[in-house]
Amino acid sequence: MTIQQKGYQKVKITDRFWSKRLEVIHDHVIPYQWAALNDRLEDAEPSHAIENFRIAAGEAEGEYHGMVFQDSDVAKWLEAAAYSLEHHPNPELEKTADEVIALLQKAQGEDGYLNTYYMLKEPNQRWTNLRDNHELYCAGHLIEAAVAYYQATGKRAFLDLMSKYADYIDTVFGPEEGKLKGYDGHQEIELALLKLYDVTGNDKYLNLSRYFIDERGKQPHFFDIEKKKRQESSPFFFHDGYAYHQAHLPVRDQKEAVGHAVRAVYMYTAMADLAAKTNDETLKKACEALWENVTQKQMYLTGGIGSMAFGEAFSFQYDLPNDVSYTETCASIGLVFWAKQMLELAADHKYADVMEKALYNGTISGMDLDGKKFFYVNPLEVQPEACEKRNDQKHVKAVRQTWFGCACCPPNLARLISSIGHYIYSQKERELFVHLYMGHETNVQLAGCRVQLAQETNYPWDGDVTMTVSPEKAYEFTVALRIPGWSRHAVLKVNGEVVDHFPIMKNGYVYITRTWEDQDKIELSIQMTIEQIKANPLVRHNVGKAALQRGPLVYCLEEADNGGQLQNILLPRKAELKAEYDEDLLEGVVVISGKAERIDEKDWGGSLYRTAEIQTSPADIKAVPYYAWCNREPGEMRVWINQSR
Amino acid sequence: MTIQQKGYQKVKITDRFWSKRLEVIHDHVIPYQWAALNDRLEDAEPSHAIENFRIAAGEAEGEYHGMVFQDSDVAKWLEAAAYSLEHHPNPELEKTADEVIALLQKAQGEDGYLNTYYMLKEPNQRWTNLRDNHELYCAGHLIEAAVAYYQATGKRAFLDLMSKYADYIDTVFGPEEGKLKGYDGHQEIELALLKLYDVTGNDKYLNLSRYFIDERGKQPHFFDIEKKKRQESSPFFFHDGYAYHQAHLPVRDQKEAVGHAVRAVYMYTAMADLAAKTNDETLKKACEALWENVTQKQMYLTGGIGSMAFGEAFSFQYDLPNDVSYTETCASIGLVFWAKQMLELAADHKYADVMEKALYNGTISGMDLDGKKFFYVNPLEVQPEACEKRNDQKHVKAVRQTWFGCACCPPNLARLISSIGHYIYSQKERELFVHLYMGHETNVQLAGCRVQLAQETNYPWDGDVTMTVSPEKAYEFTVALRIPGWSRHAVLKVNGEVVDHFPIMKNGYVYITRTWEDQDKIELSIQMTIEQIKANPLVRHNVGKAALQRGPLVYCLEEADNGGQLQNILLPRKAELKAEYDEDLLEGVVVISGKAERIDEKDWGGSLYRTAEIQTSPADIKAVPYYAWCNREPGEMRVWINQSR
Repeated sequence: MTIQQKGYQKVKITDRFWSKRLEVIHDHVIPYQWAALNDRLEDAEPSHAIENFRIAAGEAEGEYHGMVFQDSDVAKWLEAAAYSLEHHPNPELEKTADEVIALLQKAQGEDGYLNTYYMLKEPNQRWTNLRDNHELYCAGHLIEAAVAYYQATGKRAFLDLMSKYADYIDTVFGPEEGKLKGYDGHQEIELALLKLYDVTGNDKYLNLSRYFIDERGKQPHFFDIEKKKRQESSPFFFHDGYAYHQAHLPVRDQKEAVGHAVRAVYMYTAMADLAAKTNDETLKKACEALWENVTQKQMYLTGGIGSMAFGEAFSFQYDLPNDVSYTETCASIGLVFWAKQMLELAADHKYADVMEKALYNGTISGMDLDGKKFFYVNPLEVQPEACEKRNDQKHVKAVRQTWFGCACCPPNLARLISSIGHYIYSQKERELFVHLYMGHETNVQLAGCRVQLAQETNYPWDGDVTMTVSPEKAYEFTVALRIPGWSRHAVLKVNGEVVDHFPIMKNGYVYITRTWEDQDKIELSIQMTIEQIKANPLVRHNVGKAALQRGPLVYCLEEADNGGQLQNILLPRKAELKAEYDEDLLEGVVVISGKAERIDEKDWGGSLYRTAEIQTSPADIKAVPYYAWCNREPGEMRVWINQSR
Repeated sequence: MTIQQKGYQKVKITDRFWSKRLEVIHDHVIPYQWAALNDRLEDAEPSHAIENFRIAAGEAEGEYHGMVFQDSDVAKWLEAAAYSLEHHPNPELEKTADEVIALLQKAQGEDGYLNTYYMLKEPNQRWTNLRDNHELYCAGHLIEAAVAYYQATGKRAFLDLMSKYADYIDTVFGPEEGKLKGYDGHQEIELALLKLYDVTGNDKYLNLSRYFIDERGKQPHFFDIEKKKRQESSPFFFHDGYAYHQAHLPVRDQKEAVGHAVRAVYMYTAMADLAAKTNDETLKKACEALWENVTQKQMYLTGGIGSMAFGEAFSFQYDLPNDVSYTETCASIGLVFWAKQMLELAADHKYADVMEKALYNGTISGMDLDGKKFFYVNPLEVQPEACEKRNDQKHVKAVRQTWFGCACCPPNLARLISSIGHYIYSQKERELFVHLYMGHETNVQLAGCRVQLAQETNYPWDGDVTMTVSPEKAYEFTVALRIPGWSRHAVLKVNGEVVDHFPIMKNGYVYITRTWEDQDKIELSIQMTIEQIKANPLVRHNVGKAALQRGPLVYCLEEADNGGQLQNILLPRKAELKAEYDEDLLEGVVVISGKAERIDEKDWGGSLYRTAEIQTSPADIKAVPYYAWCNREPGEMRVWINQSR
C-alpha cells in the first residue's frame, strides 16, 4: 500500500530538476489548460469542455461539442490542480477548482450520472456503446480527480459527488440479474475505483473494479452483444477489434501486450493494484507475464511503448522501429502508473528502473522546457523532411505542438509531474521502500510511528543522495533503498559509516534494518557512468547501433549540436566520452561529448551506389538528454547511433 | 530511332534466361489474363473488362463495372499478345485477338471515341475529368496495342481504328480556339501518339503529343479549370495535387522527380522520345536533369522507384527505406521504357545500365517463376510479421498474389517481357548500338543494307557473348557495344583477334567501325565479379550495410537459405564469397555463398537492452538473385545486409 493511499502525506519537492518542471506545470501548463478548457486559446480549436458542463448544469444554452471524452480533460485538469495545490498553495487556483466542482455538482443527474456527451447529445442512450464512447473512462478520470482533490485539500464535496456517481454505476453493472454484463472500451474506471476504495474504504468500489477486470474478454463477447443491440454492422477499424481493447482474452490469460497501448497500461495498473490489495495470485502472475513481455520485448529504450500509429498500438514482439514509433506520451505515463503498482506487488528494482526510465525520458520528452508545447508522439529518430513528406510518418512531428484536437497528453503530463512526489516511496508494515531519488521533504506513518524523511541530491546529474530519516522517537524499521540497475557501483553510508550493502541486498534493494533515531543520515553514492547500450539483436532496427545512457537518462544526438545527416556519425565501441554539466545549455544539463567518426559524404560525388568502401574522418559529437531535445532550432534527432567498424 | 520503329524487325529470342520467361508469359500469363478479363477466374474479383466492351458493342446488356481504367487491361493484353505473336506464332491467340479487335470496332463510336466507362456510365461527360478518370490513358494503351499488333501481324484494322480515335482526340484538344486546353491525369497518351507517329508518319500525332507535353503545368491550371466546371470542392488526396501528376511546373522546368512514379516515368519516356525525334534541346535537358535526379537520388538498387505507398510516389531525395518502399512493378517497367528512349538521345552506358538493372531485378521480381503470382510492390526487405501486423507496411506483401483489384502490373509485365527483344539494339544511320546481351536472332536495315544479327550467351550467369554480324554484302558501319558499368574488366575480339577497346570507347560503348562481312564474329567477355555495393551515405537507411551484386543481378538473402532474423547476418568487408551455378535451385541460378558472421541471439537471454557488446559466430550465407526471391516457402528477405565490424 502506498503512502498516498494509506497514511497519505504531502510531499514537498525541493529537487532542482523536478522543481523546474513543477514550476512550469504550475505557472504555465495548468493556466494554459484552463484557458484551453474555456476556449480562450487563439491558436487552438475550441475545447468546449467547460461549456459542455455549463450547458448540462443549465448555466448556458447550446449543443455539446468536442470528442466523446471531452469531460475527461476537465477531470485531468482538476487532478493536476489538486496535486499542484498539495505542494504549491494557490488560493486562486483552489477557488477556480471549487467553482468547477460546484459546476459538476449542478450538472450531475439526480441518480448520480455525470457525462455531458450523453446528457446533452444522446440522453436516452447511456451505456449503449461502452466499446467506443468512453463513458466509464470519463467517470474514472472524474473519480481520480475527486480522490486527488480530497487528498490535497481535505475537502469532501467532489469526493462525495463522485462516490454518488460510482454508487450509481454499481447499480448498472455487475453479475446480478438485470445488470449490464459489460466493461469499458477504454480502461480507466478500474484503477479509479481502486483509488476511491483507498480513501473511502468502501468494498463496493473494490468489488466493482474487480468485476470490470474479470468480466473483460469473456465469451459471448460483450462488445458483440452491445453492437448487435445497436444494430451496427460496420467492422471495427483495427485488425482485431477485441485485442485493440485488450478484450481478446480474459485478463488472467493474457501474456502478451496487444492493442492500444494506453488502454493496456491503464488496465495493467488496475490489475496490479487489485492483485496487491487482494493477494490475488493468478492476477499477479498475469501482471508479471505482461510486465516481462512489455519491458523485455516491446519497450523503447526511453520507456516509450506502442510501436505503431495504427491503433496507437503495440505491434509485435521486438518490433521497435525508431522513426515511425507511436510512443505516445500518455502510454509512458501509464507505464509509470503500472510500474508503481508492480512495486506494491514486489520491491524489485526492475519495476523502479522502468518507472524511472519513463519518468526521466519518454514522459517528460512530451513537453518543452517552457511547458508551452507538447509531443503526442515521442520518436527515437527524426528526419524532419520525412515527417513532412512521408504519410507513414505524419504522426511523428518534428517540433512540439501547442495543443491537440485529442488533448489527452498535456493534461496527463500535468497530473503526472505535479504528483511526482508520490512515486518516491512505498511502504509495507515496518518497511519503507525508496524507489526514486530527488530532493524533497515529507513524513510518513510507519507502523504507528511518524517519520520525517528528506532527500538532497543533484540527481539525475550525479548519483550522490543524502537522505535524512527522523522518527519521532527511536524506532526499529527497515529502509530499503533501490540501487538502480544501470549503476555499476554504489557506496552506502549510514551516519558516516560505510555499510557493505551486498549481503543485505535483494532484488536491487538494500534493506537497512536498525533502530532509527532523529536525524539519522543515509548517504548513497550511485556511480553514474556513460554507457553504450545495445539492443537485443531480435530488434531488427537496432543492429549495429548503440545508444548513450548515463544514470537514468537516455541521450540523443541533435542536429543543433552535430549538423545534419546524423546517420553518418559513427560511434566507436571504445569511444572516449566525457560527461560535463553545462549550466547554460537547455536550462542546465550534463552533456556527453567526445570523439567519434563521420562518414565523408562529399567523397561520394553524385553516385548513389558504388563498390568502394566508405571513408570516415574523426568528428566531435555532443549528446544531450533525450527529454530535452527539440528545445532549440528544429532538426534531426537520433537516439540509436550507428557504430563504427 | 529504334528498330521497332524505323525498319522494324522481329527478334527471335533464343536466350536461356529470357526464353523461360517468354514461355511463361505465353503459356500462362496471357491465357490467365485472358481468363481474368473474361471473368473466368474463380479466386479473383470479376474484371468485367471484356464484358464492358460487349455491352458497348451492343452484344450484351448490363452496366459498366470495374475501375475507370478497366479498358486499359484489354489494351495491355492485346499488346502483350501482339509481342508474343511476333516470336511465337499462335493461330488461336491471333484469332482471339482479332475477335477482340472486331469487338472494339463494334464498340467504337461513329466519331472514333472509344471508352466504355464514359460510353456506358456517363455518356454526356466525356473529357470532364481528365485529372482522375484516365480517359486519355486508356486511349494511349489502346494505341500502343494497335501499333504493336500492326508491327507483329501486319494487319492494319486495329491501327486504323486507333488512328481514327487519335484523329478524333486531335479535334478535341489543342491550342486552337474552341478546343480543350487540357491533358491527361495519368500520362500515357503522349508516348502512345509518338509510337503511332512512328508507324504512320503522320505529323498530327507527333504534334498532338507535343501539345499534351507542353500544355502540362501551365497556369491557370487546367486541373483547377476543369474542377471548377465540375463544381467540385473536395481537396485532392495527395499533399500536392499538381505534383502527384507532374503538373506542378511546365515539364521543361522540372528537375526533380515527384509524385506518382508510374505517371512520372511514362511522361519522361514521351519527353525523351519527342526530344530525340525533334532535336528539342530544352526538352532533352529536362530529361537529363530528371534522369540524374531519379537514378542518383531516388532509385533503389534493384531499379525500383517510388519510395512511399502514399500516392505510389516519389518521396524526397535519398529517402529509400527498404521495408516500406512502394517500388511498383509498373514503375520499374516505365523506367525501362524511359531508359530506352534516353538511349535514343545519347548512347551512354548509364542509361543502359539502369535499363538492364531494372530488367533483371525490379521488374521481373514482380512475377513468380511460374508466371502465376505477382507482386505489385517489390520491397528490398521483408519481415512477414511486419507486413501482416503493421498498417504502414500492409502494402508490402510477403508473398505474391494471384491477381489485384487494380490489375496494372501483371499485364504490364507481360507486354514488357514479350517485347524484350526490342530493348537490345538501337541504331542511328550507320551505327548499330548493342545495349543488351541475350541469345537472339534478328536482322536490321542499316543505311539500306540488310544485316543479320545473332547473339549467343549464358548471360546473366556469365558475361561471355558471341555476336554474329552478317551483312547481305560487305559493308562499312559501326557496331557500338556496351561495356556494362558494373564490369571491372572486359576482353573484346573480332574474328578471333583481340581488339584494344579503350581507345575506341566512349561513354561505355566500344565503337567498332569496319567493313563487316558475312559471319563476322564479335566475342565479348565481360568479367562478372561478386561486388559488395554500398549506398551513398545520404541514404540514411543503408549506412553500415552492403548489398551483393554480380553482373546485372542484385542478390538477396532469404530465410529459406539462411534462417530467420536476417538482420543478424553480418557481412565481412573482405568476405570470401563464391559464385556457383546451381541448376536445381529456382530453375537454375548462380548462387553466391561464403562465410559471414551471425550475431548470437541466444547469448542475450531475456533482456531487451544491455551494455555488453554483441557476440558473433561464423555463419555460412547463401544469396540468390533478387528477381527469384519468394519462390519457395515464405519468409524474410533482405537485400541490404548489415556489415560486420
